Amino acid sequence: MSNNTDTVPESYPMNSGDGTNSYTKNSYFQRAATNVVKAKIDDVIAEKLDVKKNSSTSESTFRLADLGCSVGPNTFLTMQNIIDVVQQKYQSQGLASHMPEFQVFFNDHVSNDFNTLFASLPPRRSFFATGVPGSFHDWLFPESSLHFVYSSYALQWLSKLPEELLNKNSAAWNKGRVHYASGLMVLIIPGIPNGIHRSSAPTGMIFDFLGLCLIDMAKEGLIIEAQVNTFNLPVYVASPKEMTQLVETNGCFNIERMEITQPGARVDGLSGQALTKHLRAGLEGIISKHFGTKIIDELFDRFSKKQQESFNLLESKYNVGTQLFMVLKRI
Amino acid sequence: MSNNTDTVPESYPMNSGDGTNSYTKNSYFQRAATNVVKAKIDDVIAEKLDVKKNSSTSESTFRLADLGCSVGPNTFLTMQNIIDVVQQKYQSQGLASHMPEFQVFFNDHVSNDFNTLFASLPPRRSFFATGVPGSFHDWLFPESSLHFVYSSYALQWLSKLPEELLNKNSAAWNKGRVHYASGLMVLIIPGIPNGIHRSSAPTGMIFDFLGLCLIDMAKEGLIIEAQVNTFNLPVYVASPKEMTQLVETNGCFNIERMEITQPGARVDGLSGQALTKHLRAGLEGIISKHFGTKIIDELFDRFSKKQQESFNLLESKYNVGTQLFMVLKRI
Repeated sequence: MSNNTDTVPESYPMNSGDGTNSYTKNSYFQRAATNVVKAKIDDVIAEKLDVKKNSSTSESTFRLADLGCSVGPNTFLTMQNIIDVVQQKYQSQGLASHMPEFQVFFNDHVSNDFNTLFASLPPRRSFFATGVPGSFHDWLFPESSLHFVYSSYALQWLSKLPEELLNKNSAAWNKGRVHYASGLMVLIIPGIPNGIHRSSAPTGMIFDFLGLCLIDMAKEGLIIEAQVNTFNLPVYVASPKEMTQLVETNGCFNIERMEITQPGARVDGLSGQALTKHLRAGLEGIISKHFGTKIIDELFDRFSKKQQESFNLLESKYNVGTQLFMVLKRI
Repeated sequence: MSNNTDTVPESYPMNSGDGTNSYTKNSYFQRAATNVVKAKIDDVIAEKLDVKKNSSTSESTFRLADLGCSVGPNTFLTMQNIIDVVQQKYQSQGLASHMPEFQVFFNDHVSNDFNTLFASLPPRRSFFATGVPGSFHDWLFPESSLHFVYSSYALQWLSKLPEELLNKNSAAWNKGRVHYASGLMVLIIPGIPNGIHRSSAPTGMIFDFLGLCLIDMAKEGLIIEAQVNTFNLPVYVASPKEMTQLVETNGCFNIERMEITQPGARVDGLSGQALTKHLRAGLEGIISKHFGTKIIDELFDRFSKKQQESFNLLESKYNVGTQLFMVLKRI
């Protein structure tokens, strides 16, 4: 099992519906991670978003996108937070009479459960809701049509992320395809500090535990060893140094923020069981696709035990930041 | 059973998925109906759409909406047709260098199967696809954000359509809510010619057959008579005269076209069985909601027999136009 793959990215939707193993019920870790950066996003909007420029055009709609929104509820909270802060900025700058209407584009793969997403939209919301199906490797939006782009815990699912970003002709980052009119992009992905080896960072350890469970199950004949060897988890955990280099090579964006943050510290009482359920909500789809659905319960039972055995070790590692927060501005 | 109801409109989604009773497989009657008006839409775009005005703004996106799109494939064909004609107009007027990008907003109730809609999007398409969940009684779009609005066989599902349209303060037609910037609206609904009684028009007869089947089943004790009496099909079949009066009272639109057309004549070999399946794909949801799912097979078996017995009568009635085609332009 490796953390990277050479294959073309497919879609790995989070668990659908709202049952006990659903992403809807098991994404509060991601929500906590989002809360950590909320204050940072507020700062960025206050400092970097040019509402005067926006209000001087005939365009009366402010368009936001969440790339890799999954099925909620996190995306609703985040989008509403951003809109609240933008509205406050219009008001504080005396532009209340130019207040735009807000339209949010919820984007995820075609196989994402948009039915659940739409059904769980908050009845009271201050935005027009739209869904955009497709990979952000493809064309998703008209030129210059977005003012704010947000993506949290989604970009790392792009297999070959680093290689493609290093290639100026690649479709990654939508260079030459989607243009963000003076748009801000807030990107949050699993990250590691500069100079730390992946396998000693918490995210890496979690994936290693999962790999060990699969190997144990192969040894016991529950799954075929060859299947384990061909299973790749298309997740890339980048450092600020790597990411800075990639963005500079790409040349489409100014880097406004680039830092490692520490979401774990804010997740109160995230028990081992909860960690297991979160991981399952995120990975059940891709694992089932490769190994079939029958192994899932057994695999995550084993994972739960394994990470409990190493809980103290894992927790100590969470002092290392695990989240890369960056803000880019379209040049 | 009546053709109108006093209740607040709920959602009555077409059958989801792509199985034998799905709307996807049983909507070619609606497609044929669409084909009849394609030439008319082409004319309207050629005559009425102001592409010079559109190309003079900084706005480089042309936005279309299909209100009540259901799950395809009809909506994809229709939207692509409209885009093709608009593109031709840009080219014929020497505005090829101002060619906009096209963004289509597929709208239907939240309970519509957007997952199926998104999964069946044509891979090669010349538009950006977005889904908009919600009733067009509610706010769906930012102000002045649409250039072309299309709705086929959807508006008639609005219960209380005529009454609300007569009330200037009503939300129908989105008066004061959604503004279509010099936008054209093409609306297609089941219709009857002026001066013809509903029960002698084909659409009315089909609903009457369905009602007779329900009454028979109640007599045989298969369903409860009281349930039949409280079942309302919230469909309104309007005449050009009625609709003209309603639009004029509303005061937001100029009427560019208002005519009864005859889709039936173009549906080759629409057998009684196919008619039954079409009706089932459209009505199974609302009937199941009221009577439960168990009666569905029996009900449509009976309907099939009943309409076969009267097939000649029904076919002769199809010489009467059954479709109201109208084009409105935002004042």
